[in-house]
Amino acid sequence: MSGSSLGLLFTVTSFGESHGPAIGCVVDGCPPGLAICEADIQAELDRRKPGTSRHVTQRQEADRVEILSGTFEGKTTGHPIALLIRNTDQRSQDYGKIVETFRPGHADYTYWHKYGIRDYRGGGRSSARETAVRVAAGAIAKKWLKEQFGIEIRGYMSQLGEIAIPFKSWQHIGENAFFAPNDEIVPALESYMDRIRAERDSIGARIEVVAENVPVGWGEPVYDRLDADIAHALMSINAVKGVEIGDGFDVVAQRGSLHGDELTPAGFASNHAGGVLGGVSTGQAIRASIAIKPTSSIPQPRNSIDKQGQAVEVSTTGRHDPCVGIRATPIAEAMLALVLIDHALRHRAQNADVAVATPRIPGRIQ
Amino acid sequence: MSGSSLGLLFTVTSFGESHGPAIGCVVDGCPPGLAICEADIQAELDRRKPGTSRHVTQRQEADRVEILSGTFEGKTTGHPIALLIRNTDQRSQDYGKIVETFRPGHADYTYWHKYGIRDYRGGGRSSARETAVRVAAGAIAKKWLKEQFGIEIRGYMSQLGEIAIPFKSWQHIGENAFFAPNDEIVPALESYMDRIRAERDSIGARIEVVAENVPVGWGEPVYDRLDADIAHALMSINAVKGVEIGDGFDVVAQRGSLHGDELTPAGFASNHAGGVLGGVSTGQAIRASIAIKPTSSIPQPRNSIDKQGQAVEVSTTGRHDPCVGIRATPIAEAMLALVLIDHALRHRAQNADVAVATPRIPGRIQ
Amino acid sequence: MSGSSLGLLFTVTSFGESHGPAIGCVVDGCPPGLAICEADIQAELDRRKPGTSRHVTQRQEADRVEILSGTFEGKTTGHPIALLIRNTDQRSQDYGKIVETFRPGHADYTYWHKYGIRDYRGGGRSSARETAVRVAAGAIAKKWLKEQFGIEIRGYMSQLGEIAIPFKSWQHIGENAFFAPNDEIVPALESYMDRIRAERDSIGARIEVVAENVPVGWGEPVYDRLDADIAHALMSINAVKGVEIGDGFDVVAQRGSLHGDELTPAGFASNHAGGVLGGVSTGQAIRASIAIKPTSSIPQPRNSIDKQGQAVEVSTTGRHDPCVGIRATPIAEAMLALVLIDHALRHRAQNADVAVATPRIPGRIQ
Amino acid sequence: MSGSSLGLLFTVTSFGESHGPAIGCVVDGCPPGLAICEADIQAELDRRKPGTSRHVTQRQEADRVEILSGTFEGKTTGHPIALLIRNTDQRSQDYGKIVETFRPGHADYTYWHKYGIRDYRGGGRSSARETAVRVAAGAIAKKWLKEQFGIEIRGYMSQLGEIAIPFKSWQHIGENAFFAPNDEIVPALESYMDRIRAERDSIGARIEVVAENVPVGWGEPVYDRLDADIAHALMSINAVKGVEIGDGFDVVAQRGSLHGDELTPAGFASNHAGGVLGGVSTGQAIRASIAIKPTSSIPQPRNSIDKQGQAVEVSTTGRHDPCVGIRATPIAEAMLALVLIDHALRHRAQNADVAVATPRIPGRIQ
Repeated sequence: MSGSSLGLLFTVTSFGESHGPAIGCVVDGCPPGLAICEADIQAELDRRKPGTSRHVTQRQEADRVEILSGTFEGKTTGHPIALLIRNTDQRSQDYGKIVETFRPGHADYTYWHKYGIRDYRGGGRSSARETAVRVAAGAIAKKWLKEQFGIEIRGYMSQLGEIAIPFKSWQHIGENAFFAPNDEIVPALESYMDRIRAERDSIGARIEVVAENVPVGWGEPVYDRLDADIAHALMSINAVKGVEIGDGFDVVAQRGSLHGDELTPAGFASNHAGGVLGGVSTGQAIRASIAIKPTSSIPQPRNSIDKQGQAVEVSTTGRHDPCVGIRATPIAEAMLALVLIDHALRHRAQNADVAVATPRIPGRIQ
Repeated sequence: MSGSSLGLLFTVTSFGESHGPAIGCVVDGCPPGLAICEADIQAELDRRKPGTSRHVTQRQEADRVEILSGTFEGKTTGHPIALLIRNTDQRSQDYGKIVETFRPGHADYTYWHKYGIRDYRGGGRSSARETAVRVAAGAIAKKWLKEQFGIEIRGYMSQLGEIAIPFKSWQHIGENAFFAPNDEIVPALESYMDRIRAERDSIGARIEVVAENVPVGWGEPVYDRLDADIAHALMSINAVKGVEIGDGFDVVAQRGSLHGDELTPAGFASNHAGGVLGGVSTGQAIRASIAIKPTSSIPQPRNSIDKQGQAVEVSTTGRHDPCVGIRATPIAEAMLALVLIDHALRHRAQNADVAVATPRIPGRIQ
Repeated sequence: MSGSSLGLLFTVTSFGESHGPAIGCVVDGCPPGLAICEADIQAELDRRKPGTSRHVTQRQEADRVEILSGTFEGKTTGHPIALLIRNTDQRSQDYGKIVETFRPGHADYTYWHKYGIRDYRGGGRSSARETAVRVAAGAIAKKWLKEQFGIEIRGYMSQLGEIAIPFKSWQHIGENAFFAPNDEIVPALESYMDRIRAERDSIGARIEVVAENVPVGWGEPVYDRLDADIAHALMSINAVKGVEIGDGFDVVAQRGSLHGDELTPAGFASNHAGGVLGGVSTGQAIRASIAIKPTSSIPQPRNSIDKQGQAVEVSTTGRHDPCVGIRATPIAEAMLALVLIDHALRHRAQNADVAVATPRIPGRIQ
Repeated sequence: MSGSSLGLLFTVTSFGESHGPAIGCVVDGCPPGLAICEADIQAELDRRKPGTSRHVTQRQEADRVEILSGTFEGKTTGHPIALLIRNTDQRSQDYGKIVETFRPGHADYTYWHKYGIRDYRGGGRSSARETAVRVAAGAIAKKWLKEQFGIEIRGYMSQLGEIAIPFKSWQHIGENAFFAPNDEIVPALESYMDRIRAERDSIGARIEVVAENVPVGWGEPVYDRLDADIAHALMSINAVKGVEIGDGFDVVAQRGSLHGDELTPAGFASNHAGGVLGGVSTGQAIRASIAIKPTSSIPQPRNSIDKQGQAVEVSTTGRHDPCVGIRATPIAEAMLALVLIDHALRHRAQNADVAVATPRIPGRIQ
């Protein structure tokens, strides 16, 4: 597996460049019998789609998904599901002028030295466009997890730049362009983004993602712990620079008497662990949080070098998200779903026969 | 690979329980011709060894490593290197009383539901004792990386509980029990730990780990990015709850005009990225940071349940580190080394022929 | 990896059903810089294409391949190469009558019990149509092996039913529908096939495949030996029931004094081993041979059962090859190429630095 | 996974050289709750042990296995099971004289060019001694398969050199040194071997291996078919040059009307397929056959070259099996068991929920 595959048993193999003919993936290992159609996948893709508000890239991509294989009469067959999304709005000419230079904060310099090829068209393979594929594959995972276990995977933006976004309700998330769980703060977020754009700059964000109803027992110690695989999957999203499980970096200053979640017959008394102990799910909500860096492509002059190693000044025009975090919520949800389904299958491979008399205590979200 | 193997080409397969006859691993994929002997590995093991100061567990383990295979006349042969560490100081009787209950913050409850087996002896497989194996395998990786590329991998504690530890010098790290890069702060750390112990409590810590001289080009987009694999490896260490690359969670409030590291003919002007762009190493220092939770085993009464689901009170005696973070530095270094060597091999598998005329600019640490 | 991926570093992930919208694959891990275009792949596909003589299925498939990703300006980029072949001549109605029954010798019964889904359209995923994908991916592998090492991979039919086909010349292979290396025997093969068809029956075949100029040193003991991986790849082709390396089953009655190929300064004195010793290539030609069973779908009545377990009589109409072996030569070549490129990459990952003063002695084919 | 691991979910990672301190393996992925002890494994090891008759190597190895991890109170825990076998009778001095030369038919030449290291002691890693590890790991697999499904895996020698060995009864196999299922032929086999030894030569053999009671549905199309994985596993055994499933190479001259096994409500009417259709088990007995080459080490002079490429004459003394096939039966059984348990787990990972009303028809052996 040479880098573009994710998952041991539910394996997503991704392909495609930002400005090539198409992007897509092959999902191998989906259990048979799941009802899935293009509309199920499209619904998730539309949540991530560019061009939906003034705060995101104005690239217009229909992002129409086609299922090429792996389903029959509306159900998965157990065979590979190939998903295809044709690119339709590639303006490669926007990128002509950056052919010879390396944009700061981009993969240009590293890809060039690694591959000796400069696919300058919108970042080629390093573009965040590839994340559409993750969302598409994640839609299948989400549906299976929901139907088999009632698992609910949801995310939201908890911070935009300096602005913390207090959680009010899941209901607000679908009602604004930021995936903010708080309707009152939306005007502040909008004016903040307008200011960032006016300053020809970009900004970071923090996204939370939560999975409820995950059964106790998923995760494969000692290296393929559930939390380790979540960290891998989330850190593999473009622009992510940090991952936390449960209380994350707050644990540094916590006492054990606070952190260790007590158990009671009625359930865990708290969820500092974020739903994972010893790398295995506890039955509580899985909680993870990610830090997303500010977009590297900004329309102001920056110092860089060209292919000959000479100093140049680079200013990135083209159509870019001033905050890639704004569209990151569905991607983070998808990645969590992909990890969970893989571990659901791994768990039942090895532990299908295990049965203990001990009652499973109820989980908690926070 | 069922959870106990790490790495695609340089693969570590770990085995062993805290209180079984032995722990160890098989390292498969090490290039032939590397001079390695037991003393090389022992040196790293001794840095992590229990019982070396009053701030860590008083368990006395010689942690003597034996090389069972894979070397001939002092050099690696290209065949699997098996490493064996016999357990010598198992006091299983310490654990007899916890057989029927689940310790808060521990893997007891999750392992029980997953495996239906309760190896109560010191946590069995979930014990941090397994990390000795990582350090042993990492010693081989470190040596190869050093000899082939001059790569230097070093870590230190940057925070203990509420106490931030300012970086003064690498030199101090080996001179105190905390791996603190600052000699002046050591008395404060010691009295802090004495207080924690007196309060029968435990505390978290933050560890930084840095790899210098990593060449540009390592990492396999889009899922096996270098940073994603580092996140996986570091999060797989017991008690880790958060991972950052470069500026980590600080990026949430950063502007793109600050974050994107400018390039100049003399080198990168900064290293906010932490040495990875687009999932590929930049030639700058790789910087990662981890949050380690407070030890779950504390000698004060806590609420829990027993196997029948009944409420009980649990107080963990036995020999435990009041701060597992204190011995985590060599482990974090080892994990980083294991990821880097795997990617060094993966890179040359696919890209051995790539040569570009563009000069590689020098890296920076901070 | 859930069954539809092949190769550790040069990984082919296949998708598609015989009568779905498309078949195709993702090739991940191809080194960058290889000149490849659709015509290169099409040339190999055309060698395997159905409908080219009266001895093969009359299904008309253009088998037009489209490269969706992974190349830029005519060269591979190091990123996944997605290949798409639309199905155009699906006559699903031919299969309507077999929905409720299991054809003898087919995957119908096993797939039904495994997946609980009956994609009766031409065998769905179990159809030999999937082998087009292998040929397409193999074309890329072949080209790289040729350009990097001068490796030549060629196959031929050495037996059709009872008729042994003596090797005369490689040149004849492209001149007849059987891939027979012997022009004189072709009329006999044709009348033999006409008789088989007239009898409403089918027949087996034996295919040889040879790779010349493979360097010494490829193969990863002890499980991923070169010969073991060749056996895996060849046995994974539909209808293959036996695989031999070198002298194959003849070794059972051979003496060691005959079998062990002697070495001389001018080269090996023989090649009974078939180019592999200890699981590692010797520098001699790699020789493998496969047995292909007669087509299961034959237009004469056979006993079977239906989904309720009741006895039924089944006679398979539709368009089928009376000897699937006839089109198997390009497939076997492709599989050998896929194994070789994967091991080329694995070898240089671990052993890139190895250099010995011992001269490499020339190889031999036979 | 760098060559020394086998299996995706039930993974055996092997280590050790013929004349190093020890050989052994780590078995990861074994389901918890299986009763297993050293005696269970020892019983299988003793079947393969050297020095048990005058027809095999006179090396005296106790082959005592120690379980280092993965069991607790006599049962598997779901964690890695490490198995250790110390080498006790290494006479490295026997090999001193071959340091500078390459033995014909051996891995000497290929390993030297691959690794640049010459571990001349008994072939080092390429020695058949490694197969003891396979037998040990296979013992665990066998026991689980037997307990969970009643699967019986047995093998026998069906040909020794020119002497075909007709199957009489399973019962005879344990009663002679050849694993011959025929007591009457044993004297002929013994005198045949005496003659081979007197001629300072060696000879090949053919081994059959059969698994009964394998349920329908195991195997993962299209590459990880059950038969493909069996071919891989069996071809990975030292000295194997050919693998057949079911009728194997006989299918070349078979008609479809003969080969395709008919189904009846009372079961399959024949088993030409050898228990696999479309890469998936049929519920019939799995039948495979392997060709084992004559031992390469023979005590008569043969032409070879030395490290400088100069012509030399080599005659191999030391303690060698004149027919490595004699001890191969338990190894082949072990490999088949390892493939089957891996596919049992893979099957239930993806298909645990599948249930069809169609009755499973009984299987047949022949």
